[in-house]
Amino acid sequence: MIGRFISLEGGEGTGKSTQAKALARSLESKGITVHLTREPGGTPGAEIIRDLLLTGHEDKWNMRTEALLFAAARAEHCQSLVVPALERGEWIVSDRFIDSSRAYQSVSGLLNDADIMALHKVGSGGLMPDRTFILDLPEEVAARRAEARDRGDSDRIGGRDSDYHHSVMAKFREYAKDEPDRVKLIDAAQSPEDVTTDIMHILNDLIG
Amino acid sequence: MIGRFISLEGGEGTGKSTQAKALARSLESKGITVHLTREPGGTPGAEIIRDLLLTGHEDKWNMRTEALLFAAARAEHCQSLVVPALERGEWIVSDRFIDSSRAYQSVSGLLNDADIMALHKVGSGGLMPDRTFILDLPEEVAARRAEARDRGDSDRIGGRDSDYHHSVMAKFREYAKDEPDRVKLIDAAQSPEDVTTDIMHILNDLIG
Ligand SMILES: Nc1ncnc2c1ncn2[C@@H]1O[C@H](COP(=O)(O)OP(=O)(O)O)[C@@H](O)[C@H]1O
Ligand SMILES: Nc1ncnc2c1ncn2[C@@H]1O[C@H](COP(=O)(O)OP(=O)(O)O)[C@@H](O)[C@H]1O
Ligand SMILES: [Mg+2]
Ligand SMILES: [Mg+2]
Repeated sequence: MIGRFISLEGGEGTGKSTQAKALARSLESKGITVHLTREPGGTPGAEIIRDLLLTGHEDKWNMRTEALLFAAARAEHCQSLVVPALERGEWIVSDRFIDSSRAYQSVSGLLNDADIMALHKVGSGGLMPDRTFILDLPEEVAARRAEARDRGDSDRIGGRDSDYHHSVMAKFREYAKDEPDRVKLIDAAQSPEDVTTDIMHILNDLIG
Repeated sequence: MIGRFISLEGGEGTGKSTQAKALARSLESKGITVHLTREPGGTPGAEIIRDLLLTGHEDKWNMRTEALLFAAARAEHCQSLVVPALERGEWIVSDRFIDSSRAYQSVSGLLNDADIMALHKVGSGGLMPDRTFILDLPEEVAARRAEARDRGDSDRIGGRDSDYHHSVMAKFREYAKDEPDRVKLIDAAQSPEDVTTDIMHILNDLIG
């Protein structure tokens, strides 16, 4: 695979979608063919599964079923879009990927990291991004941004309590420590432009 | 868990649904509380996933996504219905269960038995039935019965070609050989009443 695979991670309101768009534009301005995509979703089949996951009651799916549905959406997304694009030498910028599953689905303690990665291996051959940017922002600031954007209309998972989101952020920071070459913490309290500049700076070696 | 878990397996048209109903009635006549259920599906959430799986084009889902969706439906079914019932000492009679996933999803060669069982372990703790009855019937006879029943209106998976269904049946026979205490081959060419008698005979030791 000769293309490059970038994922953006972080809690709700940290600026992932904003940065994914800005990053795709910056890469395109350098002549790179980029697919801007997101998870769960990214292809028609995966968006159907996204709908099942994000609408309805908090307890609509138990944690195990939820983890399998995320993995199913990812398998569809990888096989239909991500892998073929990388094989053509194109880039993927994904708003969330496997690290979100690792963080969100393991917080309950019912599933561990090995469980999530086992599903990812069967579903998507364990495909990992080349670089993952964790948008790091105090939870209060992120919550305020998300609230201003949504006016209180959060989805099944975004609506979980602040302890849950705190634990998720702690997981993300752990991944940056464990895999420093792949996973980079980015100060998301800066202006959108400065966040993009930081990310593009780190991507310099991949752009070549 | 003190209840008993029975699954019925076999290709389309072998008589699983017919026998599941008859078996539930026979067990109930012995004073046993029985839940007659099916896979994929069996609970409202799992039936939603069933719909995704069985409607639409043959190539709607790739084999990996399909395996994850089956495992997701099973996780929901087990956690919401099967496990709580068994814990109350009640019986489950399920029209298909894990052996269908093992047989149907591994035929392509893309996934192996360990992959399917890995998903089942994460999703449902690897729960296995106490007894599994494979309704064994020459494929032509089963196909004729299914056709008479459906008048050519088969679902996404039932509609696959006869080589596929031949390989699936070979897998089922393999499981009966590998796990003779759990998995029993039943001659499904007999009358429905005789098939039920054979099954009840084998279940005698569990009914006690
Ligand atoms: N660096 C930033 N500074 C201030 N506001 C931002 C910044 N980045 C994004 N926002 C705003 O915060 C809200 C959440 O951003 P968004 O990109 O949707 O976050 P996410 O996709 O991580 O939930 C949006 O209204 C967006 O315009
Ligand atoms: N033992 C049997 N002999 C003859 N016909 C049968 C027998 N068992 C079931 N059938 C008929 O064959 C068709 C398929 O049976 P069904 O129970 O729906 O199979 P499955 O659920 O395995 O697809 C139905 O029309 C059913 O009435
Ligand atoms: Mg977003
Ligand atoms: Mg049936």
